[in-house]
Amino acid sequence: MVEKELNIGRHMLYTEWYSRDVGGLFMKINKHVYAAQSAYQRIDIFDSPFYGRVFSLDGITMTTERDEFMYHEMLVHVPMFMHPNPRKVLVIGGGDGGSIREILKHPSVERAVLCEIDETVVKAAMEHLPYTGSRLNDPKVELLYEDGAKFVRQFKEEFDAIIIDSTDPTAGEGGQLFTVDFYKACSEALKEDGILSAQTEGIMYDYEWGTTAYRRIKEAFPLVRLYLGFMPTYPGGMWSYTYASKSGLDPIESFDVDRVRNFKEPLRYYNEEIHKAAFALPNFVKKLIEE
Amino acid sequence: MVEKELNIGRHMLYTEWYSRDVGGLFMKINKHVYAAQSAYQRIDIFDSPFYGRVFSLDGITMTTERDEFMYHEMLVHVPMFMHPNPRKVLVIGGGDGGSIREILKHPSVERAVLCEIDETVVKAAMEHLPYTGSRLNDPKVELLYEDGAKFVRQFKEEFDAIIIDSTDPTAGEGGQLFTVDFYKACSEALKEDGILSAQTEGIMYDYEWGTTAYRRIKEAFPLVRLYLGFMPTYPGGMWSYTYASKSGLDPIESFDVDRVRNFKEPLRYYNEEIHKAAFALPNFVKKLIEE
Repeated sequence: MVEKELNIGRHMLYTEWYSRDVGGLFMKINKHVYAAQSAYQRIDIFDSPFYGRVFSLDGITMTTERDEFMYHEMLVHVPMFMHPNPRKVLVIGGGDGGSIREILKHPSVERAVLCEIDETVVKAAMEHLPYTGSRLNDPKVELLYEDGAKFVRQFKEEFDAIIIDSTDPTAGEGGQLFTVDFYKACSEALKEDGILSAQTEGIMYDYEWGTTAYRRIKEAFPLVRLYLGFMPTYPGGMWSYTYASKSGLDPIESFDVDRVRNFKEPLRYYNEEIHKAAFALPNFVKKLIEE
Repeated sequence: MVEKELNIGRHMLYTEWYSRDVGGLFMKINKHVYAAQSAYQRIDIFDSPFYGRVFSLDGITMTTERDEFMYHEMLVHVPMFMHPNPRKVLVIGGGDGGSIREILKHPSVERAVLCEIDETVVKAAMEHLPYTGSRLNDPKVELLYEDGAKFVRQFKEEFDAIIIDSTDPTAGEGGQLFTVDFYKACSEALKEDGILSAQTEGIMYDYEWGTTAYRRIKEAFPLVRLYLGFMPTYPGGMWSYTYASKSGLDPIESFDVDRVRNFKEPLRYYNEEIHKAAFALPNFVKKLIEE
């Protein structure tokens, strides 16, 4: 929680409690750049000497300028490189714009729809988060301020890829993006060879939501695989994503290594080795999702 | 730093500052179980509702009961499964006993030597850290309280594997275990087909020491590879290790998958897929170690 513990001793600190029994992360900050209470959530933007600009919803860190590329590249490029020719892509959530930025690196993309429930987040990102928000004005991008869970229901075989870049299920309206009905609606909204990816929470703390999301996606798609990536400013630095293919495309066997090798846009985290490695799961993670 | 900021509001907290410009991690704790100032460092042991027992040197988290298995399994099993028949193994540092515990899971091991400069740490681990220290009394284990950098110089072709389980170079006497001379002495002390692994620090914060260690190990061994693993309670959750082979054995090409599959002891993190995946490096990490 932001306000209560912002000042500890001589330092101005932003503290994120993972839960009251655990503890959390704290960041030294120089400046509280922006604060707003929207209809959905509390929004804060800080400047930090190490992390750069930090964006937080309801006291939970969403992006820092320092490491957001790890999250956005893993969430976006794994599905984008699996689809043979992604032209129309839907992002649900992701109001900071980081997923849109990565999607637009793929030259095949003709239209990227961002469905973010909270307009205040998108406006704040456009003004205060240039590192993620700079492409939100791109002519290929369509911005819609709607409930993603309802929005996706109107489409049949419309999108090549859907990226679920949701907040935590416990924050704001995030919980609605973690239901079987929602994932089934996503499957309907995808074309026959459509690919979905979703952020499915951290492994280390409160992994109930992560396993729940993974299992529910499995109820909606014939081929579903969990993958992992480092994300230092998310709890435990160990983040999970879920890949799902409507046509059963395996993300290792059907992966085209050369397409990544020949990709022209600079990437800081994702590469062809990381793509394959991300699907290797530690024994305790396998057990968590098997149970 | 432990004492100054142990109490914040109603909570008893242990806080680790990564650096004064960054911030760090804080853990809720119930009980300060043990505190000592040895000739080398400040030692603290806490109980935490989530992390279990926590062991800290000079205010830097060394092990928590919750996640130490990730670190110790990655540090130990990568080299142990690469050596065809590890019988005599040296651990430098590692006074908590976690590396010894993992080494003894390999039935080929006849002797495991622990060279830890600080006897106080080993005694504290034996008494207060049963989760890592329980095997320190094993008849196969030899405990030596000496400076590892000097100790290793007396051997020629003595060990099958050397595990460098050092504290941070900035803490206590850790810095001496990060020199080219030391790594060359390790190479001398290894048999012809000897394998070395070293913890080479986190990637996210202050990675100077990590890249320095990696480059210096490269000066001492013909085949050296960096690998990564999750480690939630270490800074950024993104930890690096360095694998080195005196005979040039490649950790992917010469890796025997079946030996891991047929291993009888339970492992919670490491498996044959993780072994290979750990050597896949994100683009920014490749760049850091190439520079």
